[in-house]
Amino acid sequence: VTLLYEGKAKQVFSVSGEPDLVRMEFKDSLTAFNAQKKGDFPAKGMINCQIATLIFQKLIRHGIESHFVRSEGDRAMIVKQLIMLPLEVVVRNRVAGSLAERLGIAEGKPVRAPIVEFYYKNDALADPLVTAEQVESLGLLPHLSISQTHEVLLSLQAFAKKLNQALIKIWQQVGLELVDFKFEVGTDKDGRLLLADEITPDSCRLWDLKTQEKFDKDRFRRDLGGVAEAYHEVLRRLKTDDGGRP
Amino acid sequence: VTLLYEGKAKQVFSVSGEPDLVRMEFKDSLTAFNAQKKGDFPAKGMINCQIATLIFQKLIRHGIESHFVRSEGDRAMIVKQLIMLPLEVVVRNRVAGSLAERLGIAEGKPVRAPIVEFYYKNDALADPLVTAEQVESLGLLPHLSISQTHEVLLSLQAFAKKLNQALIKIWQQVGLELVDFKFEVGTDKDGRLLLADEITPDSCRLWDLKTQEKFDKDRFRRDLGGVAEAYHEVLRRLKTDDGGRP
Repeated sequence: VTLLYEGKAKQVFSVSGEPDLVRMEFKDSLTAFNAQKKGDFPAKGMINCQIATLIFQKLIRHGIESHFVRSEGDRAMIVKQLIMLPLEVVVRNRVAGSLAERLGIAEGKPVRAPIVEFYYKNDALADPLVTAEQVESLGLLPHLSISQTHEVLLSLQAFAKKLNQALIKIWQQVGLELVDFKFEVGTDKDGRLLLADEITPDSCRLWDLKTQEKFDKDRFRRDLGGVAEAYHEVLRRLKTDDGGRP
Repeated sequence: VTLLYEGKAKQVFSVSGEPDLVRMEFKDSLTAFNAQKKGDFPAKGMINCQIATLIFQKLIRHGIESHFVRSEGDRAMIVKQLIMLPLEVVVRNRVAGSLAERLGIAEGKPVRAPIVEFYYKNDALADPLVTAEQVESLGLLPHLSISQTHEVLLSLQAFAKKLNQALIKIWQQVGLELVDFKFEVGTDKDGRLLLADEITPDSCRLWDLKTQEKFDKDRFRRDLGGVAEAYHEVLRRLKTDDGGRP
């Protein structure tokens, strides 16, 4: 078993005897603003791992496949090894965070239609926003021609919108509004686009449907307090959710 | 005669008796990095006015209409009053400037196909890059619905590519490569999209086809010296250009 990769919130290990799989272990760390702000709380890795697991399982019922294969202990999951796209995809249902700041728009303003944004994954460059045309014309997806890149981005946009619709419903079911979220994708050995990484309060902005209270990483980014409590509550709600069955 | 607007490099005055026209007077000032860097040189306004005039005249032969109506003295032109779109449009044929920095790509790298970028015109926000979907979903074009905005941006993209092809030829004719350029557009009273503002070494990156020497505002931005000489030389070449007639 080898440590293949260590990110800000996760470690990825090989799985002996299963070359197409890797073990993704969730750390207790919390980072924000391209890791300029760091923190942690006990059990954070365990909570996020369980949240991500529940979300991946619920997404299957909405026809969305992820890299998730099976749980492994409290804070890890076995996932398919993918060739990752060097993009972070953000989907927005309301203006918040960096978009509110960059464009001078009040946080919370609803958008006319969900916005899908691509960010070029590069820590040294602080993950800059890129347009689809920049990704295509600059060749930011390795080994793909301009027309292949165009096709992948069209698929990715459709995937993002479908994922957004599914996640809106899943979070709504537990009393939370999905304001925006970030996800990553990769292709498996058959060339299929799969959801990767995680869907958790680290990667989603979640506002309580009744109180507008924040149940996400903004509690940490903005020093609002109650970070651990919010993550615990999100997990508690997902665990007790009956999936909307009548 | 009233001063209607004063920008970084131009003043715009009303024209008495002609309510649909305005007089655009070019100042001697040079600014860069959202006006954090300021300079000027004598006759700069005159030179840029004459360059812009020649380019607008040449563009007509390529089927591209601008706001230009007629010259007025050395450093002014009479133009149609337009309702301006709050966007700056950038077209790139090679990576340079802010794009090279933001994405960590070497300056001068050719692109696979010309890139059209939109920037939201707002000095306080330093003109942020926006995607077409952001412009549409956030309602950044006043009074237009999401589908109307979509149509305008499609027209604008087509216009940008046609303008790029024309400008590549016009500058090539005088021994200069068009690396990238920025333009602005507005709609006239009949709702037609017209090229506005200026096309000059302030708004284009122009590299000598033989020597790669820069003949544009980068000489000022990067303290390369010879700023006035470069602008004078661009005007000299345009004036002696026979328009490629055999």
